Amino acid sequence: MERFELAIIGAGPGGYVAAIRAAQLGINTVLVERDDIGGTCLNRGCIPTKTILHTAGLFSKISHAEALGIRIESAAVDFDALRMRTAEVRESLRDGVEALVAANGITLMRGTATVAGLDGITVSQPDGTIAEISADHLIIATGSAPAKPPIAGIGEDGVLTSDDMLETIPELKRLVIVGGGVIGMEFAGIYAALKTHVTVLEAAPRILPTMDREFGQSLAMLYRKRGCAIVANALVESIERAADGSLSVRYAVKDAAETVDADAVLVATGRAPAFGGLFAEGFELELDRGRIAVDKRMQTSAEGIYAIGDVAAAGAQLAHAASAQGIVAVETIAGADVSFDPALVPSCVYSSPEIASVGMTETEAKQAGIAARAGKFAMTGNGKSVITGQGRSFAKIVADESDRIIGAQLMCGRATDMIGELSLAVANGLTIEQMKSAIRPHPTFEEAIGEAFEAFAGGAIHAMPKPR
Amino acid sequence: MERFELAIIGAGPGGYVAAIRAAQLGINTVLVERDDIGGTCLNRGCIPTKTILHTAGLFSKISHAEALGIRIESAAVDFDALRMRTAEVRESLRDGVEALVAANGITLMRGTATVAGLDGITVSQPDGTIAEISADHLIIATGSAPAKPPIAGIGEDGVLTSDDMLETIPELKRLVIVGGGVIGMEFAGIYAALKTHVTVLEAAPRILPTMDREFGQSLAMLYRKRGCAIVANALVESIERAADGSLSVRYAVKDAAETVDADAVLVATGRAPAFGGLFAEGFELELDRGRIAVDKRMQTSAEGIYAIGDVAAAGAQLAHAASAQGIVAVETIAGADVSFDPALVPSCVYSSPEIASVGMTETEAKQAGIAARAGKFAMTGNGKSVITGQGRSFAKIVADESDRIIGAQLMCGRATDMIGELSLAVANGLTIEQMKSAIRPHPTFEEAIGEAFEAFAGGAIHAMPKPR
Repeated sequence: MERFELAIIGAGPGGYVAAIRAAQLGINTVLVERDDIGGTCLNRGCIPTKTILHTAGLFSKISHAEALGIRIESAAVDFDALRMRTAEVRESLRDGVEALVAANGITLMRGTATVAGLDGITVSQPDGTIAEISADHLIIATGSAPAKPPIAGIGEDGVLTSDDMLETIPELKRLVIVGGGVIGMEFAGIYAALKTHVTVLEAAPRILPTMDREFGQSLAMLYRKRGCAIVANALVESIERAADGSLSVRYAVKDAAETVDADAVLVATGRAPAFGGLFAEGFELELDRGRIAVDKRMQTSAEGIYAIGDVAAAGAQLAHAASAQGIVAVETIAGADVSFDPALVPSCVYSSPEIASVGMTETEAKQAGIAARAGKFAMTGNGKSVITGQGRSFAKIVADESDRIIGAQLMCGRATDMIGELSLAVANGLTIEQMKSAIRPHPTFEEAIGEAFEAFAGGAIHAMPKPR
Repeated sequence: MERFELAIIGAGPGGYVAAIRAAQLGINTVLVERDDIGGTCLNRGCIPTKTILHTAGLFSKISHAEALGIRIESAAVDFDALRMRTAEVRESLRDGVEALVAANGITLMRGTATVAGLDGITVSQPDGTIAEISADHLIIATGSAPAKPPIAGIGEDGVLTSDDMLETIPELKRLVIVGGGVIGMEFAGIYAALKTHVTVLEAAPRILPTMDREFGQSLAMLYRKRGCAIVANALVESIERAADGSLSVRYAVKDAAETVDADAVLVATGRAPAFGGLFAEGFELELDRGRIAVDKRMQTSAEGIYAIGDVAAAGAQLAHAASAQGIVAVETIAGADVSFDPALVPSCVYSSPEIASVGMTETEAKQAGIAARAGKFAMTGNGKSVITGQGRSFAKIVADESDRIIGAQLMCGRATDMIGELSLAVANGLTIEQMKSAIRPHPTFEEAIGEAFEAFAGGAIHAMPKPR
């Protein structure tokens, strides 16, 4: 039996980041992974999605380049080259993480782990041997996998998860997406840019149902203009193979039965925590709505055992949340007084324009009994937004009664790279006055953030004045 | 004689922003402009430059699209269409500002002003009439114009300023740029992307001589790879018209005489404050190295008279500095206790990758006697940077002995939209610990900022560990 100070199961953005921080703190660590280093994010999530989006986004710009003064004879996406490029980016980043793990002196063990307790971790290795490990501390970071809802015909060929889509990057004429959440809407944007006819079927009254109402409303409007069909309140009933080989998706909207045909159906209705087979018989951890229950230090119901990332019940299932949780768990193990606050995790949609939010919306704050106010700026008054031809977009900031920033919702160019400033404000309880003291350069999208703060008091400069 | 509470001369980003804030505060304001509303920035500066850059940047991406999986038959820039698009953006934003000025109830007066004092402002109007104005307060915001150094042949046709370049947007095979500062390097980037052969002649030992050393070094390396010739320590001696119609630029590098031929020469060696003819005989204001001297409230040597923007001696000549100064002047007039700190003004270069900085560099801080430390992160470990194929790039943060942020230097994708977070930190004396408490989303460029903060203490996650 090999003994470590810390064992981490799962080498995704939760596990590998935790392992590196542990190594930096001098903790003797083993990192166990049964599949590829980097987890869902690097191999079947964020990274391949954004790589494909990078090409799709450029292709979309090329389609509109004439208005910018560029004449193009003909342009086409070479799907084989796109697949190769996506594989290259994935491998390059995976090699990078593997190199970091090695350089930090972390023991990497390949295989499938089973946990009976801190002194009973076994790893079934690819060569058939079983390694036995004991550890002072254990972090479970086994992630999640796409969940398929129980719809008739869900097992048909061509009914795909995001895993399948990113594995094959299919060339499609017609795509139906079941689920208009973040994953669904990112694929909708990508495939619409690639000139596929996209239909999004969302069961809730609007797309992006867990986010600020205005995001879903605005994005639906923009994507419809680009030719996407977006159907809210759509309850998918079955998927059938039609005579011509198409997939026929039957759904109901307020009692009316509808059908839409497609070459492929992407099911993007959620992800399930992945810990099947992880626990040895007789070993149990407390669960919270199907995920492993944790406190704010990421401790599970078992002494010395932590859970982080998608498998843990600690807010949104996002890579950067997993990384932050991993660091909290490790620093807790090292004796620091740190904790994880799910309210500080920003959420992004890599749509066009981009969407990013952190903290509370004005509505959520009011529902929580806070006398919240919002400062809003429409990007029509932003020079960079006009230059780059972004569509309908805005920046919105939410403050409490003592003028502290408690949330922000951005839908504009580069929003995903500007939300950090608002995360910082929420994390540190910065005030409107403090936020206004920064000078933001011209011409940038981030000027809109400054304008939204001005809108609270003196008034935004580049916005029509309110009637007095 | 018409009487106003406030007269503002010059409707650029200093003057018109000041006028709008004044109107928001209920101050009866006249705004005098002899040329186009929006000043240099909107008409002959930031806005047309970034509009052309938007097209040039897309054209450059198109030239490299095959690597991303897009096949393109042929692509060419249509300069007439680009000129039209640039004019459209300019007019659309100018219309927007004019509408804001009107909606805020600001009196706009066209014409050339002369100032003898607060009770002696005359405006020579386009119709030949002279308007006489008196005001309780006056803000001078007359801006600057490109300065041409006394070089033999500087008056030749084809020797252009940035004004001329943005007016005509010439199609060029060979362009020589005299001056490797921000304006020079932005045009170098634009024209290199448009496949012009560009030569930059910089008198200082490196391009971007007033900024962090690493910016100039890295950008020179990257732009040389893209085919630009960049010559440091180059003293331009003369420009001559050659027999074949080319312009021949003679310069010396460390006593060696050199010549380079071009279709046009852009002179980008600086801008001179524009207040020629503004002061009536006998009226004077104290100057500071050729610009109007001001205190931190933008007050000149004359009671009730303020100067803002490029004409004032208050740090860098930048649009967002002018706007911030305008707001300080107006709020001071309204009785608020506010001031302008040039150290809080970020500087940007719209290069590829982008450059943005605020506050002190590590070197500057050490020269000022501060025991400064820097946290640095190389973008090779940043996923978004790998996906989008940014070249050599980095994020660098400077903190003082008490861990307060005193500066930042970013050279990476979207840097110009991320510097605001660091401006905020410098303005409010935020600490490394406070900056680390924010969670930045994945995958974004702004993760690099978080990594740079981690580099101060625990260590960046996505960087090779230092040998222990």
